[in-house]
Amino acid sequence: MSSYAIGIDLGGTNLKAAVVHKTDGVVEITKRPTEADQGPEHVVARIADLVDHMIEGAPGPVTGIGIGSPGPINWERTTVTRPPNLPGWDSINLSDKLRSTLGLEIPVIVENDANVAALGSAFYGAGKAYDSFIMITLGTGVGGAIIYRNQIFRGSTGGAAEIGHMTIDYEGAFANSGVAGAIEGYLGQSFLSDHARDRLVNYPDSTVHDLVDGDLDRLDPRILYEAAKDGDEAARDLLAWAGHKLGCALGSAINLLDIRTVVVGGGVSAAGDFILDPAREALPDFVMPGLRSDLKILQEVLGNEVSLLGAARLAIEGREAQV
Amino acid sequence: MSSYAIGIDLGGTNLKAAVVHKTDGVVEITKRPTEADQGPEHVVARIADLVDHMIEGAPGPVTGIGIGSPGPINWERTTVTRPPNLPGWDSINLSDKLRSTLGLEIPVIVENDANVAALGSAFYGAGKAYDSFIMITLGTGVGGAIIYRNQIFRGSTGGAAEIGHMTIDYEGAFANSGVAGAIEGYLGQSFLSDHARDRLVNYPDSTVHDLVDGDLDRLDPRILYEAAKDGDEAARDLLAWAGHKLGCALGSAINLLDIRTVVVGGGVSAAGDFILDPAREALPDFVMPGLRSDLKILQEVLGNEVSLLGAARLAIEGREAQV
Repeated sequence: MSSYAIGIDLGGTNLKAAVVHKTDGVVEITKRPTEADQGPEHVVARIADLVDHMIEGAPGPVTGIGIGSPGPINWERTTVTRPPNLPGWDSINLSDKLRSTLGLEIPVIVENDANVAALGSAFYGAGKAYDSFIMITLGTGVGGAIIYRNQIFRGSTGGAAEIGHMTIDYEGAFANSGVAGAIEGYLGQSFLSDHARDRLVNYPDSTVHDLVDGDLDRLDPRILYEAAKDGDEAARDLLAWAGHKLGCALGSAINLLDIRTVVVGGGVSAAGDFILDPAREALPDFVMPGLRSDLKILQEVLGNEVSLLGAARLAIEGREAQV
Repeated sequence: MSSYAIGIDLGGTNLKAAVVHKTDGVVEITKRPTEADQGPEHVVARIADLVDHMIEGAPGPVTGIGIGSPGPINWERTTVTRPPNLPGWDSINLSDKLRSTLGLEIPVIVENDANVAALGSAFYGAGKAYDSFIMITLGTGVGGAIIYRNQIFRGSTGGAAEIGHMTIDYEGAFANSGVAGAIEGYLGQSFLSDHARDRLVNYPDSTVHDLVDGDLDRLDPRILYEAAKDGDEAARDLLAWAGHKLGCALGSAINLLDIRTVVVGGGVSAAGDFILDPAREALPDFVMPGLRSDLKILQEVLGNEVSLLGAARLAIEGREAQV
């Protein structure tokens, strides 16, 4: 008989859930507002309600639940601590809370959202053909994950793969983390938008000015991507600038890990080859000669679904999914 | 009955060998010139002769042989490919050659010299108290190794942990690898010496000028260390400059690995706290806030012996020693 797992994507704005079959993938998907402003008790109750709803609606028995959450997760994969965008949370053992609230006998496994997305990519997405790859997610922040021999590499405490905080210029501008020249300070959504705003002064004819009706405060990376697609030189230059920085940081990561495939996901990655081609061009210059063969930068194509698939996969793989 | 392993350190200048007991450590040690200029056949014959000599002299049965070698080693840990400082070598299966030449039934395991040093540190040296640590070796080049949960992290092909090639300034000067701003371009012995030579123009009163009898071509990091110990301001500034760069690069590595203990070995590390204190000071500024606790930079104190111990340990641990 076919069995199913439930994947939950706990975000600051939305709670998403999917019923996933090991081989068939997503069979049902639901989205509800997180209502994070009403505090952790409320959110946990909403997650419990959602899980209950998904179990009832599943076409067969549910053997486990996986949750992708922002913020640091403990080594045992039960507890979230002070997740960004979820006000009022301290340390919450989501696994115990859900199991006791719902009287569940099945495992509930919690994992960092970037790791969950990478697991989804590894089993269903762009990473499927590779037993090891580095995932980098370009969004509000720049997140990362390492899949090593089909498992999540978690480091000493579960906090590994913070590629966004690696420096490529020790005297560079500070990112939100306080790290000078950290890659998030180039590719994070607000940093990239700020940089573009400053640079667009030099491109008075850019169509970006029209796309934001002359109000550069409305600029975001999506608009750069739209303009680049339409052939706008300024937008292409700006995305290429960002892509070059991405290539530099990925070079450092590859030197350290000897993992030569990179999967790029997250909202900003929608800009695709406008960012990725310059990254591909810069990459070998920042990798030592002996590791320069077979370098690959791929775009994740599954979108948000990759996180739900990964969260569910967490429950399917259980504790085998980490190294 | 007690059993022993033999550790070999294959260097460009010297061949070293030790008989090692699992708990007692080194029980016998020997050094011979490598005679690398006479080509690979000759060197392999010399290694075989040395192994034979060590087996005969061991106080009990020898259960395995481990070899630390420069250059890339294949995943199976048998074969060295084009090691630097060993002219004329292409790909040589040292494991098969030694086993067939000597008619050995015991395993012969070959591993990269930086990984071997880290394994030695993990079981006998500064890394002993830590199940995971990053090792960085400061010598002619800057090498690295990752010990993760008591095993060597080898990456996809066995080439992981090339910390020396990570960039900290994407527009910086080129290191030998061609990577701009790579840490080896600051801390590698010749780069550090060149930098010191240039900077010493600004320190006409430095005792370094006396220590090299006015000939700055004779400058090397050991002389900087001597001068720093004697209170020379210029030498201290120069080593602090190098230490700061080390801290920047280690911050990037820690962000990626979430391994927060670093062991520093190699010749240049003799400069000890003159380099390591500035590195310790810079380090947290280059680590994201969530990973900043329990950061440690330790100096390896075992010296060259650490490589022999690590090589032997390779044979004691066998295939368990890698992840």
